[in-house]
Amino acid sequence: MKSNIVLFGGGNHLQYSLDIIEREGKYNVVGIIDSVQPIGAILFGYKVIGRQENLSVLITEYGFDAGLITVGDNWIRMAIHDAIIEQLPNFRFVNALHPSVIIGNNVQMGTGIIAMAGCIFNPGAKVGDFTFFATGAQIEHDCEIGDYASISAGTILGGHVKIGKFSAVTLNVTVVDRLTIGENTVVGAGSLVTKSLPDNVLAYGMPAKIIRSREARERFLK
Amino acid sequence: MKSNIVLFGGGNHLQYSLDIIEREGKYNVVGIIDSVQPIGAILFGYKVIGRQENLSVLITEYGFDAGLITVGDNWIRMAIHDAIIEQLPNFRFVNALHPSVIIGNNVQMGTGIIAMAGCIFNPGAKVGDFTFFATGAQIEHDCEIGDYASISAGTILGGHVKIGKFSAVTLNVTVVDRLTIGENTVVGAGSLVTKSLPDNVLAYGMPAKIIRSREARERFLK
Amino acid sequence: MKSNIVLFGGGNHLQYSLDIIEREGKYNVVGIIDSVQPIGAILFGYKVIGRQENLSVLITEYGFDAGLITVGDNWIRMAIHDAIIEQLPNFRFVNALHPSVIIGNNVQMGTGIIAMAGCIFNPGAKVGDFTFFATGAQIEHDCEIGDYASISAGTILGGHVKIGKFSAVTLNVTVVDRLTIGENTVVGAGSLVTKSLPDNVLAYGMPAKIIRSREARERFLK
Repeated sequence: MKSNIVLFGGGNHLQYSLDIIEREGKYNVVGIIDSVQPIGAILFGYKVIGRQENLSVLITEYGFDAGLITVGDNWIRMAIHDAIIEQLPNFRFVNALHPSVIIGNNVQMGTGIIAMAGCIFNPGAKVGDFTFFATGAQIEHDCEIGDYASISAGTILGGHVKIGKFSAVTLNVTVVDRLTIGENTVVGAGSLVTKSLPDNVLAYGMPAKIIRSREARERFLK
Repeated sequence: MKSNIVLFGGGNHLQYSLDIIEREGKYNVVGIIDSVQPIGAILFGYKVIGRQENLSVLITEYGFDAGLITVGDNWIRMAIHDAIIEQLPNFRFVNALHPSVIIGNNVQMGTGIIAMAGCIFNPGAKVGDFTFFATGAQIEHDCEIGDYASISAGTILGGHVKIGKFSAVTLNVTVVDRLTIGENTVVGAGSLVTKSLPDNVLAYGMPAKIIRSREARERFLK
Repeated sequence: MKSNIVLFGGGNHLQYSLDIIEREGKYNVVGIIDSVQPIGAILFGYKVIGRQENLSVLITEYGFDAGLITVGDNWIRMAIHDAIIEQLPNFRFVNALHPSVIIGNNVQMGTGIIAMAGCIFNPGAKVGDFTFFATGAQIEHDCEIGDYASISAGTILGGHVKIGKFSAVTLNVTVVDRLTIGENTVVGAGSLVTKSLPDNVLAYGMPAKIIRSREARERFLK
C-alpha cells in the first residue's frame, strides 16, 4: 500500500516533483503545504491543504506521516526543513527518484532528495540530504554531494568530485575529476571547472573563473 | 495490428528513423518515397516505392494511410509537408519516438515528430509539429518548441524556454531558463545561450553572440 | 548458465566495471588479476587471484575461459592485451555493457568494450576493440571508434565522426558531424571540436585548438 506524504512548496518545483512521485508509485500525495498559494487551491490536481505552522493539525486531518520539500532554492529548502523539525523533531522525509534514475553499487543516498528523469549516480557516490538533481545530471563514481546542494540538467561531475553544502552547479556544467567545490558556491551554466573552487563564490566560464563572492543564504535562482 | 506508413526521404535521416520505428513497433513501413533515389532501390531493407507526385496512386498500391517526413533540413520538411497536403489535405502524419524517450505529465506532443534515443520532455512542455530531436536532447519543464524546429544531440533547454519555428539548436547547446529563441534562427554547436535571440540569425559561442543574419529557407546542414 | 570470466586490473576502473557486469548478469567474475594488489585481497567483494604471468595456471585453478581488461589508460589496456595474447593466443575477451546502454541497428561492436550507464550507440556506428565509454557518452549514427580509444562522460560525437586508435575524448566534449580525430590524440574536457584533428596531439578549448604534440604511449589520466 502506498504511504501518504505531503509536499512543502507550491512553486516551480511542484509540477515535476509530482510527475516523479506519480511515476515512482510509492507515495500518495495528500496535498500541498505552501505559504503563499490560497488554501483550497488546486495545483496540478492536488489541493493546497494549509500552512506549515499548522503542520501538526494537518497531519491529524490528512493522515500523512512523511513529506518532501519541493522548492528549488537551496537555502530555502533548509529553512523549511529547520522549521518543520523544530515543530516535529521526528518528521520523516522521503526521496523522489524518477524511475529512469540509475543508482550504482555502493551509492549512499540521503533523504529528501529529488532526482529527475535520466540522472545517473555511479558506484561509490555519497549523496547528501535535501539535494536536487535536474534532468540527466551525471554523478560519476565516488562523488560526494553535500546537503542542500543542487546539480542542474545535463551537468557532469567527474569521478571523486566533491560538492559542498548549499552549492549549485547549474545547467550543463563539466567538473573535471577529483576537484572540490566549496559550500554555498554557484557555478554558472555551461562552465568547465578545471580547478577546485572555494566556499562562497560565484564562478563561471571556460575555464570557470571566480567572478565575485557570495553571501550566506544568497539566492541563485531568478 | 500495426498500421502501414510510408516515409518521405531516403537520405541521412532514414537509417535512424527506421531504427526508431522498428523498436517502437507501432507501424509497418511499406516503403520510401524519395525524389532522387532510384525507384526499386533497397535502403536499409526498405524499398523506394516512388515519387511524391504519385502519392495518390502509391497509397492505393501499397495500402498506407499515414506517413512521416524523414528529412533533416527544417525548411525542406515544411516544403514536403505542404506539397503532400496540397495533394491530399487529409493525409495523416505519425510520430516516431524511440522507446527510451521520456515524456512527462502535461506534455503536448504535435504530429510528425521524430525523437531519437534518450530524449526527455519534461512536464508542461509543448512540442510543435514536424519537429526533430536528436539523441539525448533534454527539454525542461514548460518549454515550447515551434513547428519544424530541430534540437540536436545532447542539447539542454532550461525551463520555460521557447524555440521559434524552423529554428535549429545544434549539438550540445545550453539554453538558460526562460529565454526565447526566435524563428529561423540557428545556434551553433556547444554554445551557451544566456540572452534571448531574435528571428533570422546565426549565433554561437560562449556566451552565444549573433554572427550574422539568415535568409528564410536558408539551409543549415552541410 | 553464466560463464566465468576474470578481470585484469584492480584500480579505478574496477568498481564500475563490476557494477556493469553484475547488472548485465551474463558473467560470473571468478577474481581479479592485478600486478600491484596483494594476492588474496578482496576488492569490492572479489578476490585478487594472482598475477598475469601465471594466467595459464589461474585458468585451470579458477575455471574461467574469458576476461575483460578493466584499466582506464588506453595504452596500458593494449599492453595488457598484448601480454595476454602472447601467452594465450586464443584467450577470449567479453564486453561489459550496462543494461541501460542503447545500441541501434547496424552497429558493429568489437570485443573487450566497457560501456557505462546511459551510453547510446546510434545506427551504423562501428565500435573498435578494447574501447571504453563513460556515463552517457552519445555516439551518433555512422561513427567509427578505433581500438583502445576512450570517450568520457557526457561526450557527444556527431554523425560520421571518426576517432583514431588510442585517442581519448574526455568529459562533455562536442565533436561536430563528419570530423576525424587522429590516433593517440587527446581532447580536453568541455571542448568543442569544429575541425578535424591529426594524430598525436593534445587539443582543447572552444573551439578546440592544438596545444602540443603527444608521444606514443603517453598517459593522459592523472
